[in-house]
Amino acid sequence: MSPKFPQQVHLREVGLRDGLQSIATILPTAQKLEWLRAAHAAGQREIEVGSFVPARLMPQLADTAEVVAFARTLPGMETSVLVPNLKGAQLAIAAQADSMLVPLSVSHAHSLANLRKTPDEVVAEIGRIRAERDAAGSRTRIEVGLSTAFGCTLQGPVAPSEVMRLLQAVLDAGAEQVGLADTVGYADPRMVRELFEAGRQIAGDRLGCGHFHDTRGLGLANVYAALETGVTRFDACLGGIGGCPHAPGASGNVAMEDVVYLMRSMQIDTGIDFDALMAMRRQLAIWLQGESLHGSIWKAGLPRTLLAPAAEAVAA
Amino acid sequence: MSPKFPQQVHLREVGLRDGLQSIATILPTAQKLEWLRAAHAAGQREIEVGSFVPARLMPQLADTAEVVAFARTLPGMETSVLVPNLKGAQLAIAAQADSMLVPLSVSHAHSLANLRKTPDEVVAEIGRIRAERDAAGSRTRIEVGLSTAFGCTLQGPVAPSEVMRLLQAVLDAGAEQVGLADTVGYADPRMVRELFEAGRQIAGDRLGCGHFHDTRGLGLANVYAALETGVTRFDACLGGIGGCPHAPGASGNVAMEDVVYLMRSMQIDTGIDFDALMAMRRQLAIWLQGESLHGSIWKAGLPRTLLAPAAEAVAA
Repeated sequence: MSPKFPQQVHLREVGLRDGLQSIATILPTAQKLEWLRAAHAAGQREIEVGSFVPARLMPQLADTAEVVAFARTLPGMETSVLVPNLKGAQLAIAAQADSMLVPLSVSHAHSLANLRKTPDEVVAEIGRIRAERDAAGSRTRIEVGLSTAFGCTLQGPVAPSEVMRLLQAVLDAGAEQVGLADTVGYADPRMVRELFEAGRQIAGDRLGCGHFHDTRGLGLANVYAALETGVTRFDACLGGIGGCPHAPGASGNVAMEDVVYLMRSMQIDTGIDFDALMAMRRQLAIWLQGESLHGSIWKAGLPRTLLAPAAEAVAA
Repeated sequence: MSPKFPQQVHLREVGLRDGLQSIATILPTAQKLEWLRAAHAAGQREIEVGSFVPARLMPQLADTAEVVAFARTLPGMETSVLVPNLKGAQLAIAAQADSMLVPLSVSHAHSLANLRKTPDEVVAEIGRIRAERDAAGSRTRIEVGLSTAFGCTLQGPVAPSEVMRLLQAVLDAGAEQVGLADTVGYADPRMVRELFEAGRQIAGDRLGCGHFHDTRGLGLANVYAALETGVTRFDACLGGIGGCPHAPGASGNVAMEDVVYLMRSMQIDTGIDFDALMAMRRQLAIWLQGESLHGSIWKAGLPRTLLAPAAEAVAA
């Protein structure tokens, strides 16, 4: 009756992009590189390191090319960047990022407000990005994140049929992987289950990544619900930094350390050292003094059952 | 492929017992009655109102008999009390509580520390309680909460086989309902799934209640995992009051308003008015000034999709 859980999941750190872009503090490049070094040492193997957007719009991420160049020197590290359009994609290709994430907001209202394009105009841009990438002979993977897939603060409900239509459209336009993102923290486990199951029927293994926010406390329940449908790749953010612009005081992205704990408690390997991650969180809190950190596990620490060697025997 | 979710779940408020017993503030009886009145008006229909333990051990709950008497005047309200032993059960029977919850700690170390009895001595006491109840011609239901069922801060791991052995033993001794409790916040969704599925094979519908703490952020994921196995009755605590004695700053019981939100987001009826609950939370924060409240949904409020009438059409 129980679902089969995977033995291993893949967690992508998005704090350097999704986290840092949402806060006022500009983390100096040297500290970003130190973060990357520590992340690599802790076993993290995929990091979204920045975004190729104009520096005047997002000064926090103005050093993205430099950060990509450093991340590429870390053995085995997948370096991911966000690109909002063809211009950004050209920069990602030039920087030789391993993958570029193109966000497409399923909510028309959100898409217009954020990118000044309709979702279908973004689909067309994805086609141009694919053509450019192929013409350049680049190996930078094209991933599309379907944001506001579970609802939108501007538009309200987002129809699952529209999510599925755009999922098919971006695959047709040349996306190699597609993720579903709960950008504003509206998802619940039932929606997650239904939308990921429907998405898998369209995209198969190209349905890559679950991106959940913990704005209303359901972040980890949603991760679990997606895991049950076969999702094995998740975004998360050290210390849950960034918060939620629409709800001051509330969390943003699920905290990396919480997701690592969830997986470890279920005997699912992430390759990430929990204690090293907690040390990184403490360092980040010092760097980002005055900014709010979020998450849960840091308060109580691991259960004794995950510390004692006897735990494995009992859990087995 | 998706599990069938129930249309309705039953939530028991345990704040007046599990919450209040863990904090220093003694809530005056008049405010407890006001809380009960508001809870009834908000649609709550089962409340654990106190504990029949010696007043010198737990002065916060010294007025339990009076609170039970008041709760019994609220139409349709199930009045539940905790009883640690036969003496407490006699008081519960005399007070005509609808049900009495006998805690049995599966962890031997925890059982000895808390009740100065082994788990099997508690089983014997349950037998005496059943005999007393039957002899008195009382209709007070006997429920047993198997605490530390998912691990223990003192003992560490708790063997699932020992949980199952004691589950069978308490049923044999005369318990009419049995719940599994994650007293210290060690459970994860996989354990929850496995233990509740195993428990149902022994107890059938007598496996009544999921009692989860949110100490490490997995409270709602665990509620969801239990729900998937068919559990339709959960304990929760307004404002997550009480916290965790072993982890200062961390949550205790899952917050009632968070569980109500989880269920509402999944279109599962709880009978409880969310806005009324939030008003109660604000009142409680005033009464318990200086104590920490917990939970998540209060920070961001309901998603717009649960406010707009259009939401139902899309969700359907």
